[in-house]
Amino acid sequence: MKKFILFAGIIMLCSFQPKKPTKVVFFGDSITEYAVQPAGFITLIQQRLKAEHKDSDYEVAGAGIGGNKIYDLYLRYEDDVLTKNPDQVVIWVGVNDVWHKRMFGTGTDWDKFGKFYTALIKKLQAKNIKVTICTPASVGEKTDYSNELDGELNRYSNIIRDIAKQNNCDLVDFRTLCHDYNLKNNPTNKADGILTKDGVHLNDQGNQFVADIFYKTLFK
Amino acid sequence: MKKFILFAGIIMLCSFQPKKPTKVVFFGDSITEYAVQPAGFITLIQQRLKAEHKDSDYEVAGAGIGGNKIYDLYLRYEDDVLTKNPDQVVIWVGVNDVWHKRMFGTGTDWDKFGKFYTALIKKLQAKNIKVTICTPASVGEKTDYSNELDGELNRYSNIIRDIAKQNNCDLVDFRTLCHDYNLKNNPTNKADGILTKDGVHLNDQGNQFVADIFYKTLFK
Amino acid sequence: MKKFILFAGIIMLCSFQPKKPTKVVFFGDSITEYAVQPAGFITLIQQRLKAEHKDSDYEVAGAGIGGNKIYDLYLRYEDDVLTKNPDQVVIWVGVNDVWHKRMFGTGTDWDKFGKFYTALIKKLQAKNIKVTICTPASVGEKTDYSNELDGELNRYSNIIRDIAKQNNCDLVDFRTLCHDYNLKNNPTNKADGILTKDGVHLNDQGNQFVADIFYKTLFK
Amino acid sequence: MKKFILFAGIIMLCSFQPKKPTKVVFFGDSITEYAVQPAGFITLIQQRLKAEHKDSDYEVAGAGIGGNKIYDLYLRYEDDVLTKNPDQVVIWVGVNDVWHKRMFGTGTDWDKFGKFYTALIKKLQAKNIKVTICTPASVGEKTDYSNELDGELNRYSNIIRDIAKQNNCDLVDFRTLCHDYNLKNNPTNKADGILTKDGVHLNDQGNQFVADIFYKTLFK
Repeated sequence: MKKFILFAGIIMLCSFQPKKPTKVVFFGDSITEYAVQPAGFITLIQQRLKAEHKDSDYEVAGAGIGGNKIYDLYLRYEDDVLTKNPDQVVIWVGVNDVWHKRMFGTGTDWDKFGKFYTALIKKLQAKNIKVTICTPASVGEKTDYSNELDGELNRYSNIIRDIAKQNNCDLVDFRTLCHDYNLKNNPTNKADGILTKDGVHLNDQGNQFVADIFYKTLFK
Repeated sequence: MKKFILFAGIIMLCSFQPKKPTKVVFFGDSITEYAVQPAGFITLIQQRLKAEHKDSDYEVAGAGIGGNKIYDLYLRYEDDVLTKNPDQVVIWVGVNDVWHKRMFGTGTDWDKFGKFYTALIKKLQAKNIKVTICTPASVGEKTDYSNELDGELNRYSNIIRDIAKQNNCDLVDFRTLCHDYNLKNNPTNKADGILTKDGVHLNDQGNQFVADIFYKTLFK
Repeated sequence: MKKFILFAGIIMLCSFQPKKPTKVVFFGDSITEYAVQPAGFITLIQQRLKAEHKDSDYEVAGAGIGGNKIYDLYLRYEDDVLTKNPDQVVIWVGVNDVWHKRMFGTGTDWDKFGKFYTALIKKLQAKNIKVTICTPASVGEKTDYSNELDGELNRYSNIIRDIAKQNNCDLVDFRTLCHDYNLKNNPTNKADGILTKDGVHLNDQGNQFVADIFYKTLFK
Repeated sequence: MKKFILFAGIIMLCSFQPKKPTKVVFFGDSITEYAVQPAGFITLIQQRLKAEHKDSDYEVAGAGIGGNKIYDLYLRYEDDVLTKNPDQVVIWVGVNDVWHKRMFGTGTDWDKFGKFYTALIKKLQAKNIKVTICTPASVGEKTDYSNELDGELNRYSNIIRDIAKQNNCDLVDFRTLCHDYNLKNNPTNKADGILTKDGVHLNDQGNQFVADIFYKTLFK
């Protein structure tokens, strides 16, 4: 009889034991680094998960460092991502790979970009981590493709779209999503102030826009 | 009586004296330099002027030098253009101003580009020369604006359009004309081979296309 | 008798008429622009001319604009230099021609640098203006030639030395003078703070150093 | 008795068993890639090891790929170096990290250069591999530090010297060794043709020079 009670108790404990939440890590550059600030998109996602009582199902964290390019992510994925034991990693990178060409002469060749991106995905997938990747949104929000780096951002976005297909990754195509948003909401062809503060880094509207898209994509 | 005959003779001589043809000089970079070759657009224009018996009305000449940027034109307009006594000058420049940024680190800042362009136009207009200016066609013919320099070419084309308005110059908007041509004739998004050999320099089709547009614009 | 008095009066007036001072214009970039500030080398030269009672012999003025490269000087020499009716022009330029390669992708090719420099000198010499030219001092004061742009600055200085010879210009070789000064006065291989505030723009010591050299060279 | 013979035989076999040679892998860019060609320095080292009957003590191999920068080495050290089971790795990289800044806008920031270099050394040392590192020789052999990239090469060489100290690596300082060689053997300040074909890639004399230095350093 005692044994039975003990046994039943174990069963009950097990059934009440809270399920381990799915851990999602956002891995990227300054856009992701700022996303954990009070109005940032990771914070907004956390608040919404709580409000919708999904915070026991999903746990989200940021691993963004300003100025990072794809090979910087490759260098630090073990220390900064694997140590967080994620079930899913969202990689959002590419702006600096293009931008630093002009700024410092230290951008990333398009072929090396693909090589490091693919290597990073494979390392994560080898740990059974689901990988979602994103195209870079913008360096300048003008809608007639007259932002200095538009040619390169379109080109690297094409590369990322190919990488997603080749590696069975989900894709969040911010390049297209933000361009379309600007076509509707930026009638005077402004360089910033629509979804970004400076053409690159998200303002409040941008953080809300991005949070909504990620929420819909990741927690459906 | 003698005086009258002399006078009448002078009148007749004057009326038979062939009218001086309008002299048009194309002033630019390698695209214009190659235009005087057998299949080049200047040669094609000359042939058509002859075929349509307008070669006594118009005389065309090239003054293109490979690698030239706007400030190179400013340096040599006296030696290479004014010495040809043109009635009209067609300036087509801009590709190297953008391209050399990436290639050699020696492109032209957008504000300096406008400054030199305006100064050159004013120097020519001060000599009663009519000035026509052109936007750069392409560095890469892909139609989704994913050619590396598309952002810059669109930006510098906007600047040239403004300069045309501010200085009452006719504008030949090759950036738009060639993009539209490619949208119809480049369905597989090729980087070259449509109007150009290498994304920049005109092939036979390109020379014909450009010759037709210039002919229609300049000799209507 | 009256005539004699008048004649004598004219003679006297002529002999007392002050001699027109030699006008020297410094033509360059931000280094020259800042030189007219209270502690700048042009101001120091003016003060010394006054103190040594040579200010009726020499008049000095600045024509520096920040960010200028050799071709910017060529664009504005008529408006900013010829209008000052100088007897002598001191050209000091080159830092931005090299620096802007890395900073903005808009430096000056070495061959174009020589071409514009020579054209500018010839335009000035054609107006009987004596031309003195200078090598760029530094972008970074480290003495082991490990400042990022040392290779280029040495190369462009070689070009300027050749231009001086080819055009019979006096040369003030600040590249060598400042390097030698640093070898003696910068034992810990600092990047700035010896003759400059930031590796490029002169501090008080630098302005004094440059003023002394120019004074000795120009007003001997 | 039989047992004794067997035992003696085993002892003898053991004592005759050839010692496993020390495996040295040269890891780098095109300079190392070309080194395995007939006149390359790795081939020369192999020939000398054989001639001096040390080829059973040392085995050398190349792992160079043209265009590689430090982060490319980091990406491929597992596949291309660890798979060769080396006892010692000689890293020679840096030219492209500097050169590609100007050429393609895709060089390596100096701080990232240090970060990846240190990370690579630590990964190799963690496998008990002895690591020797080298400074880049030259991009241009002119001796007055007027080669375009001299400033950067001197700077990155300083970084490599610090990395060697911090990580207890042997250093082969080709930057100094080749400069000193040129000071003696390049009296007319030529840009190439002394130790290199093109300022960068070793000619026969350069391969011999480098082979001698490595031989002396590694197999003393």
